Amino acid sequence: MVKNNVRAKRFKKVGLHTSLLDKNSSAIGKHIEEILSYKGIKTLYDETFSKLNKSKIQTHTDQYILKNSDLVIAIGGDGAMLSCSRKYGAKDIPILGINLGKVGFLTDIAPDEVTSKLLEVIEGNYDKDKRFFLETNINNKKERFIALNEVVIHSGAIAQLIEFDLFIDETFVYRQKADGLIVNSPTGSTAYSLSGGGPIMHPSLDAITILPMFPHSLSSSPLIVSAESAINIRLSEKSSSAQISFDSHNFVKLKGKNEIHIGKSQSMLELIHPIDHDFYDGCRSKLGWSTGIAKS
Amino acid sequence: MVKNNVRAKRFKKVGLHTSLLDKNSSAIGKHIEEILSYKGIKTLYDETFSKLNKSKIQTHTDQYILKNSDLVIAIGGDGAMLSCSRKYGAKDIPILGINLGKVGFLTDIAPDEVTSKLLEVIEGNYDKDKRFFLETNINNKKERFIALNEVVIHSGAIAQLIEFDLFIDETFVYRQKADGLIVNSPTGSTAYSLSGGGPIMHPSLDAITILPMFPHSLSSSPLIVSAESAINIRLSEKSSSAQISFDSHNFVKLKGKNEIHIGKSQSMLELIHPIDHDFYDGCRSKLGWSTGIAKS
Amino acid sequence: MVKNNVRAKRFKKVGLHTSLLDKNSSAIGKHIEEILSYKGIKTLYDETFSKLNKSKIQTHTDQYILKNSDLVIAIGGDGAMLSCSRKYGAKDIPILGINLGKVGFLTDIAPDEVTSKLLEVIEGNYDKDKRFFLETNINNKKERFIALNEVVIHSGAIAQLIEFDLFIDETFVYRQKADGLIVNSPTGSTAYSLSGGGPIMHPSLDAITILPMFPHSLSSSPLIVSAESAINIRLSEKSSSAQISFDSHNFVKLKGKNEIHIGKSQSMLELIHPIDHDFYDGCRSKLGWSTGIAKS
Amino acid sequence: MVKNNVRAKRFKKVGLHTSLLDKNSSAIGKHIEEILSYKGIKTLYDETFSKLNKSKIQTHTDQYILKNSDLVIAIGGDGAMLSCSRKYGAKDIPILGINLGKVGFLTDIAPDEVTSKLLEVIEGNYDKDKRFFLETNINNKKERFIALNEVVIHSGAIAQLIEFDLFIDETFVYRQKADGLIVNSPTGSTAYSLSGGGPIMHPSLDAITILPMFPHSLSSSPLIVSAESAINIRLSEKSSSAQISFDSHNFVKLKGKNEIHIGKSQSMLELIHPIDHDFYDGCRSKLGWSTGIAKS
Repeated sequence: MVKNNVRAKRFKKVGLHTSLLDKNSSAIGKHIEEILSYKGIKTLYDETFSKLNKSKIQTHTDQYILKNSDLVIAIGGDGAMLSCSRKYGAKDIPILGINLGKVGFLTDIAPDEVTSKLLEVIEGNYDKDKRFFLETNINNKKERFIALNEVVIHSGAIAQLIEFDLFIDETFVYRQKADGLIVNSPTGSTAYSLSGGGPIMHPSLDAITILPMFPHSLSSSPLIVSAESAINIRLSEKSSSAQISFDSHNFVKLKGKNEIHIGKSQSMLELIHPIDHDFYDGCRSKLGWSTGIAKS
Repeated sequence: MVKNNVRAKRFKKVGLHTSLLDKNSSAIGKHIEEILSYKGIKTLYDETFSKLNKSKIQTHTDQYILKNSDLVIAIGGDGAMLSCSRKYGAKDIPILGINLGKVGFLTDIAPDEVTSKLLEVIEGNYDKDKRFFLETNINNKKERFIALNEVVIHSGAIAQLIEFDLFIDETFVYRQKADGLIVNSPTGSTAYSLSGGGPIMHPSLDAITILPMFPHSLSSSPLIVSAESAINIRLSEKSSSAQISFDSHNFVKLKGKNEIHIGKSQSMLELIHPIDHDFYDGCRSKLGWSTGIAKS
Repeated sequence: MVKNNVRAKRFKKVGLHTSLLDKNSSAIGKHIEEILSYKGIKTLYDETFSKLNKSKIQTHTDQYILKNSDLVIAIGGDGAMLSCSRKYGAKDIPILGINLGKVGFLTDIAPDEVTSKLLEVIEGNYDKDKRFFLETNINNKKERFIALNEVVIHSGAIAQLIEFDLFIDETFVYRQKADGLIVNSPTGSTAYSLSGGGPIMHPSLDAITILPMFPHSLSSSPLIVSAESAINIRLSEKSSSAQISFDSHNFVKLKGKNEIHIGKSQSMLELIHPIDHDFYDGCRSKLGWSTGIAKS
Repeated sequence: MVKNNVRAKRFKKVGLHTSLLDKNSSAIGKHIEEILSYKGIKTLYDETFSKLNKSKIQTHTDQYILKNSDLVIAIGGDGAMLSCSRKYGAKDIPILGINLGKVGFLTDIAPDEVTSKLLEVIEGNYDKDKRFFLETNINNKKERFIALNEVVIHSGAIAQLIEFDLFIDETFVYRQKADGLIVNSPTGSTAYSLSGGGPIMHPSLDAITILPMFPHSLSSSPLIVSAESAINIRLSEKSSSAQISFDSHNFVKLKGKNEIHIGKSQSMLELIHPIDHDFYDGCRSKLGWSTGIAKS
């Protein structure tokens, strides 16, 4: 993480984004608008707010926000943060997260500290760190799917298998039968991957974890490769009903024999943190690192 | 396992069952029919054979097989064995498995030893062991679902959570968020549960393993309870799209708030084995127990 | 667990045991003596108290306690409970645990509830459950070592291997290279075994877990067998510096080629609990079962 | 891995190293000497050969080998390779490994392909890859300990705990009680760390894994940090009998309250491989990646 000692950049046009699951976002949004307005900054609500409730909040298109914001604030949990990152963060707008009471690794600011922390950030007093996105291409088609946390390839049904060959930089790695496969970034290492037994990677690490889900072979450890690697997964024809998801959000159904390319995206996310942000502090409080068990 | 030293019981009426996935079952079926016929035993093909291919094999209804067999032979992999066990084994007919070349913990006899091994068994020269079924009841309705290996409750989608409370013998155990939950018998401990990190239980053990899948809480070890326990899982209302599967075969969609009761069934499966059968030998050859890794 | 509704048995002669690590045991001991005295019950301190501090407490030999007590109270953590269980519990005296502030699965009563809970128990108002001991025999010598939690066979050095063959009921299971091997009871399943990835077994289960430590073979799942099994471990000659420990307490150095027999002891521990005792409640509070992680 | 297409560098002075555990090294050594001699290259046996057997092989001091070799060949298993790497590799001499029949990730050439492969390498037809060493400093004393695979801090006794605080780049990470702690390089990720549940890291990764052994806290995932990190472990005073080992070889007893610094060494190992070397092929053959289990 780069300490922002110069405190040069002050934000002037701030977008707001939320998730449909976060019912109380509008109230916090109003509060943020007030603070920003006090500092002479215009608040641009994006269209997630008009979907959220039928209030008279004036909203703007994504396109407008992209052109007219130099910061977007995500209100909610990690879900809001992830969609905000894919929508605006992947297009070079810095993102700041306000945590709406849920457990979140990406949203630093608690609702009761919005006033003080947000003022600090607005005045240029903040840290920032860069996170990379995973970019996925299916069957060499034009479309690119991006994910901040993880790409999951899954059979799409309970206890059904997919079969695939894994290649890294064109070298064959293994053929595996499993319920699915998780490919995750360091940012995603504290999310879904973790509950499947994946390791925690420091956010600054330029690496990707490849983790089979319920693998047929018992000797399948997680595999960590350079983030610069070209990851290629070739599904067998039997795995015809497989699905692929990006940040557990965007779902695509696969058909027949499929080839999936995953690599690091060229665009990077710039995450804005209050000065006292500490990754390991988040781990301790969110992962129960201090919980002990009895030993004889 | 009870060694059958008396060698009293000889089988006189033998049913045949297969799975639709095992294309070569008819040929082996014919071979078995020949051997049985040589010993004066009539072979009763069940209707899976008429579904398998359009040959002129004369088949019988399940009902007929149930009334007229004192042994049913399952031809195929563990899948054929599981369906055979639920269909006939749960109704007190002993089951013998012929392995069609797949990895199988339940099917002992390889195709190339059918003649010798089958003759031995037919002549009353065999071991038998008893396996219990899991019986599931949903929302206190009449229907009972049985499974030999495992019951899986699952969100029905990639990386989606179910939330549930677990009770054992009416005592609250924990509230958990997870992709799903596996409840498995010792027989199932070498199947799906194993690839999720569950322990191997000797088939004779009167115990059940409860294993969360991708649990939210990192401190969720597998839990082993007595097979006599009443296991009760209460899904939260949020888990409305959950599914339940029995031996990865029979799927039921759940709706809204559900209560699932799982316990040991009163009916037991009687598995017939050739004399030299050895559970641990199966583990060594099928689980790669002899594979080593490098240590410095 | 058997609910003791009859409330028949009242205790009349109560021994006290502690561990040398529990510096505050004497104070709690005095408090217990007072309560017991008020009920007309004599308190018999065992010799651990004279080792603990040089006070004028009158102590008695183990032999005397064994003859003259119908209950022994262990004061401390699980360590005190384990030594008390091996010393008195294995010889048919019921054991009650007072927890001195450490995490403990076996010691139910907190210091600040001693008065109320102890009075209840003394008046015959308690639950009891039975736990089995593991009994170990080395090279067929006469001496028997008992353990309530676990037997650990270990190379005795960092990152050094032992090599052994495992037999269950005289059937070969596997040859393994590993740092060591844990054989544990259900009581021990929430102790050392748990931190090595072993499953939690309900205390009532008549089963034993066998768990390799840092095994050479990656496909080594924990193995659960009936507690009635005869477990036999034959160390290779190379494993000459191996050690064996019982409840992480009693250490024995092995020499050359060794054969170790482990089975269920004939003597059982009778654990006394306050009426509201709940195994799963202990798991929730001590194992952090409610701790969650972030999912996207 | 850098493909060495130019085939520029030919080796002219070759040292030989072995391990005392590899009894047949002298025979292979003679064979290598013959091949080298045929190419006009002098073979320099190091003093491990004079310790190995009392033959009349002329040996040289480490110092002499260091000055007079541009390649050292390690004969044996990964143990020989590790000692050779620490002794010569850490001082900028490239290392090539001849595998004496043991499982080895670092020794590529099998005894029966020595002639052909060695000739190729000698003629400048080889691949090379760079591996970093871990460098450890205890209590800020001058001495530096190096390890290619891993540093293990351990209680030095069965089922005894060490307690420590972990800091990364001066930021507090966690306080942990555990049997020990493994800090390993990518090279070590297929060795001891793997049997403790650590992930496999591609050798090219600039990262370090931190893995608690039998941790008290169940929620202790492996942690992967940049290899440029300053890792600082502060043992509590209670952990007074702890030990530290480097590549499971060099053991140091710690005393009292200790502070251990681990980081990446400035010196790098240059590993020489035959052209067809493939890391993942090694994983498949040595880790049993193709072994399957039965699924219902």
